[in-house]
Amino acid sequence: MKTRGLVVVLSGFSGAGKGTIMKHLLKQYEGLYHLSISATTRGKREGEEEGREYFFKTREEFDRMVSEDAFLEYATFNGNSYGTPKAYVEQLVSEGKDVILEIEVKGALQVREQFPDALLLFVTPPSAEALKERLLGRGTESEEVAMQRLAISSQEAQLMEQYDYLIVNDVLERAMEEVHNIIQSEHFRTSRNIESIERVREELQAFAE
Amino acid sequence: MKTRGLVVVLSGFSGAGKGTIMKHLLKQYEGLYHLSISATTRGKREGEEEGREYFFKTREEFDRMVSEDAFLEYATFNGNSYGTPKAYVEQLVSEGKDVILEIEVKGALQVREQFPDALLLFVTPPSAEALKERLLGRGTESEEVAMQRLAISSQEAQLMEQYDYLIVNDVLERAMEEVHNIIQSEHFRTSRNIESIERVREELQAFAE
Repeated sequence: MKTRGLVVVLSGFSGAGKGTIMKHLLKQYEGLYHLSISATTRGKREGEEEGREYFFKTREEFDRMVSEDAFLEYATFNGNSYGTPKAYVEQLVSEGKDVILEIEVKGALQVREQFPDALLLFVTPPSAEALKERLLGRGTESEEVAMQRLAISSQEAQLMEQYDYLIVNDVLERAMEEVHNIIQSEHFRTSRNIESIERVREELQAFAE
Repeated sequence: MKTRGLVVVLSGFSGAGKGTIMKHLLKQYEGLYHLSISATTRGKREGEEEGREYFFKTREEFDRMVSEDAFLEYATFNGNSYGTPKAYVEQLVSEGKDVILEIEVKGALQVREQFPDALLLFVTPPSAEALKERLLGRGTESEEVAMQRLAISSQEAQLMEQYDYLIVNDVLERAMEEVHNIIQSEHFRTSRNIESIERVREELQAFAE
């Protein structure tokens, strides 16, 4: 009997390091975790590849997928749309594979509506001060943009309790192992093993009669 | 800030190997886990020591503890009573220590009433057939006793869903690591980290203002 894989959602404040955790997790446990790749209307950045970071779509293509209900969740930021193709995720979990979605808070809650068993993980830096430093220290954006991201983080923090687990990304290696152990442990959760429970129960019943 | 330790309840069918898992866990992670020691009225068996396997009590002493509400749970089997002293467990978790209670199903559910955050783990053998073999192969009891234990297991199986996690004890070393990872991962559960969430939230709010 092949059990269904887990839909794992990884969210966190911008600058909390979730992308880095993901990259190391996929490398360290190659073949164990599968990355869900989003579709987006935003332009391809230098170094990005079609089907690796994103599936790059025109606005028309993206809107058609929306109208066909092909997304598990989608959202628009700064005029660019991002969405998680539903069929891809459904296929992987039905094959027993654990699929990780790196998405923001509102999208995460949309995913939970469609997959009530989805595992929601939230990554934070050790402190808000550390987050501010990481955002300002990136150098890829102005202080104004960094402050905007902090304001967004403050809004996102209101929904943190809706996540299942909180990972404090202080030491990368440790945070990655925590994510790995949490996912692996969740496979043993009783609610995910109802079929085996019923099997054991029937077998014991047969002996007892 | 010192967070509270976890109350971990380990139950499982007689013969499922929970005692062996416990023993290896406490040895492998010395100092990390603390064993709750039960009080009992049953006679001391060869090799057992007061305060190690059990606190051996007379019937009068045990009954006085019951009347003083000193037990987290207690139960009677074959005329012998067993109980978990409440004060000992409360002290350890308030010091931030994870305490493991090896108790049977009804006791486990009594513990949850007093500690709603208690983590309930259930150990099963890979199959009912394997359980039967282990019970008969023990040699410490007659076939009749083994069959009685199987009948009790069948009753206990009705309450398995009330546990949080199911550990299949096929390879001892692996089952022990699963128990360890489950307990460690549970520390990161959002519901156990409400204070840190509120702190991050306040800090971010201060930046955003």
